[in-house]
Amino acid sequence: MTATRSVLASQATDYPRWFQDVIAKAELADNGPVRGTMVVRPYGYGIWELLQEAMNRRIKATGAQNAYFPLLIPESYLQREAEHVEGFSPELAVVTHAGGKQLEEPAVIRPTSETVVGEYLSKWIQSYRDLPLLLNQWANVVRWELRPRLFLRTTEFLWQEGHTAHATSEDARAFATKILYDVYRDVMVNVLAIPVVTGRKTRRERFAGAINTMTLEAMTGDGKALQMGTSHELGQNFARAFDISYLSSAGSRELAWTTSWGSTTRMVGGLIMVHGDDAGLRVPPAVAPTQVVVLAVKEEAIAAARGIADELSAAGLRVTVDDRTDQPFGRRAVNWELKGVPIRIELGPRDLAADVATVVRRLRDSDKTAVARADLTRTVVAAIEADQDHLLAEATARQAARITAVRTVDEAIEAAASGWATLPYDAVGEQGEDRLAESAVTVRCLQRPDGTLPLDDHEPDLVAYVARSY
Amino acid sequence: MTATRSVLASQATDYPRWFQDVIAKAELADNGPVRGTMVVRPYGYGIWELLQEAMNRRIKATGAQNAYFPLLIPESYLQREAEHVEGFSPELAVVTHAGGKQLEEPAVIRPTSETVVGEYLSKWIQSYRDLPLLLNQWANVVRWELRPRLFLRTTEFLWQEGHTAHATSEDARAFATKILYDVYRDVMVNVLAIPVVTGRKTRRERFAGAINTMTLEAMTGDGKALQMGTSHELGQNFARAFDISYLSSAGSRELAWTTSWGSTTRMVGGLIMVHGDDAGLRVPPAVAPTQVVVLAVKEEAIAAARGIADELSAAGLRVTVDDRTDQPFGRRAVNWELKGVPIRIELGPRDLAADVATVVRRLRDSDKTAVARADLTRTVVAAIEADQDHLLAEATARQAARITAVRTVDEAIEAAASGWATLPYDAVGEQGEDRLAESAVTVRCLQRPDGTLPLDDHEPDLVAYVARSY
Repeated sequence: MTATRSVLASQATDYPRWFQDVIAKAELADNGPVRGTMVVRPYGYGIWELLQEAMNRRIKATGAQNAYFPLLIPESYLQREAEHVEGFSPELAVVTHAGGKQLEEPAVIRPTSETVVGEYLSKWIQSYRDLPLLLNQWANVVRWELRPRLFLRTTEFLWQEGHTAHATSEDARAFATKILYDVYRDVMVNVLAIPVVTGRKTRRERFAGAINTMTLEAMTGDGKALQMGTSHELGQNFARAFDISYLSSAGSRELAWTTSWGSTTRMVGGLIMVHGDDAGLRVPPAVAPTQVVVLAVKEEAIAAARGIADELSAAGLRVTVDDRTDQPFGRRAVNWELKGVPIRIELGPRDLAADVATVVRRLRDSDKTAVARADLTRTVVAAIEADQDHLLAEATARQAARITAVRTVDEAIEAAASGWATLPYDAVGEQGEDRLAESAVTVRCLQRPDGTLPLDDHEPDLVAYVARSY
Repeated sequence: MTATRSVLASQATDYPRWFQDVIAKAELADNGPVRGTMVVRPYGYGIWELLQEAMNRRIKATGAQNAYFPLLIPESYLQREAEHVEGFSPELAVVTHAGGKQLEEPAVIRPTSETVVGEYLSKWIQSYRDLPLLLNQWANVVRWELRPRLFLRTTEFLWQEGHTAHATSEDARAFATKILYDVYRDVMVNVLAIPVVTGRKTRRERFAGAINTMTLEAMTGDGKALQMGTSHELGQNFARAFDISYLSSAGSRELAWTTSWGSTTRMVGGLIMVHGDDAGLRVPPAVAPTQVVVLAVKEEAIAAARGIADELSAAGLRVTVDDRTDQPFGRRAVNWELKGVPIRIELGPRDLAADVATVVRRLRDSDKTAVARADLTRTVVAAIEADQDHLLAEATARQAARITAVRTVDEAIEAAASGWATLPYDAVGEQGEDRLAESAVTVRCLQRPDGTLPLDDHEPDLVAYVARSY
């Protein structure tokens, strides 16, 4: 083990501090100059780009098309949907002046785009032939946060927001559910290696204006919950507010049913919190900007390091050569460990002499193994694949071990001090949610006993997942 | 020829109206609700995505890395560079209230990010080892426009902005020039099929805060100029304002030299104006979301149309099947023509009987050719390639034909009524620029007689390109 620990707070001692330290030392992000904003540095943005690509591909596979709606929304638009404006008003950033003059109507910076999208869906949708209409956009949004925290809750964040309109309630629900499972869960589990619990939010936790919010919750290293994405059935609330209607094949005018769904840069925060350890970040190979770093220990190893890098690149891996032999080797090794690069290959004079390379697997035990030069590419390719799976298995086992089945709200509060609790939702109810809230604990989601999604909150035998959360 | 012309104003009669009509009818974009903003619809965004991908790949090939800086910038940041604040102040959108309160310091929505990037370059750059530092971001910016026009000049637009810091003036200039040629010109010429004249801006037209602005200018269908991208040497202006300095290898503290460079959704406007005709848009195959549309004329052709589409997709083309056989065929054909899809394959009962498909090349003459089914894929692949080249050759010839060499400012003003003029810059000077401006004509750029970039405005024998512009 290396000296990394001295540069980071340990998770056990001060988890929030550890989180901040990792972000700073791994050069993922900085605080922006306006309170609560974030500068995403190249290494953090590189992770986001790969994640975005994986998400975008799956979104397009559902048939949704990308578009772009304006940043600025007339204040009056938000007021058309009563619950929506109530939910978002306290968080709005308002442009009152532009071009040297006071605006006639103030414009808000979008906190989310249901209202402006609704206005255009209304124009674009005429007949049943135009449905379903499936849109997505990659954009920045602004929500003024009281307690900002890098990646998890920033005043401005990057996200994708999907907006769809359908002819029937059933079609809308099926699409919102498809996004939840085939897009979001697939990316989280198979790309980010993060196990998630999926379920329905209680009325209290629902998106402002939705009739149903479905969520994916991840467990952080300190046993809290992190909402990783949400998919909403909006019923006919926005269709009514913005007159999104269509001529049916029978010739009658009908209101559409809409959905919206979003996932954000917060997922990078999830990646840090789910996989990180006391030595720093651990990045799943699927989103690692650098999957393998080849370190030349001394100058005479640089040419061989480059040769290895070329071979690994040709095998389809993302590889970086560290040839900064004028800097201490130990510091460089610690730096790559901090950045959570999955595989580190060290190449020194002794390795060259023995025709081997030293392979360190950051996502396993960080033990050093000498691998024969001829076997190197095959070994590394196999390790990358295996370690992606290992990370998921490890996180899944840890999550399972920290979920306690309880019977009462009091027991749930106690269990939530160190992990999650499940309990019968009948034992909670709206009153129970108030009591949980007093201890900063919330119902994260509701599931049927078989793990599937309930159609409403009043189904019998629902299981509530309860936890503290970020 | 089809009936398209009736749905669009003709270019000769009313070019600005034609431009608006194409954007609306081809479903590229809509006006946003806040004046001057834009909704980019899926078809327009699809073009932008392909363009973005081509640009992004080339930017990364220069060694620049993507990052993300905040939307909101403290007002005081802009004031640190005197020319910069003077240039941008009239266009700023200002957030005065957020989270239900008045802000202590108003924040502006970024009109460009030199100032906020400067603040972080200053933190991140310590030693000569950290240079060059090469960053890029894809983002939205807001500049309050008095006369907004979709794609060309919108209050909010999408762009990439690059920001780099270098140890020497020479290195900064070389990098800004590399961006101009290897990234921007390459994309414009070889992806968008748009010939561009590259040169140096006069002092009057320079970016606020730059010591040198290099530009790429395209000629629109009505003979005006459209600035398609710019690359700036910022000298040490921002380095001084934000203290971007480094410890040299000799141990002295030195100010860095910075550059910035941007290209925007305006390029889509350029694509429309350079290639469009009275029948609508014409999209270069390299950025066509649909390169080939296969139209089933009647229901019995749908299966065969899908078979053709599968075969073309397997050959690497982007293909759409139009199976809306319940709608009039003529209207569907006109619609694809309007959208400028490069190749239209029509498949009717007679085609099926003769084992042929009817191929219409939108980028050529739109004549209909019967192609034997067995030759179809090979023919279409070859046509796509040839038509990308054809579009460029056509635009290049048209541009050359509309540039007139003149000797005096008066002649230049006359020539600019219908095209561009070149004249000796000695015959213009600052006074001449004032006189041109009175006729809404500007010096678009300066070139050396051999077409290369001047190092300053005072070199002898410089050639000025003069035109009206968007």
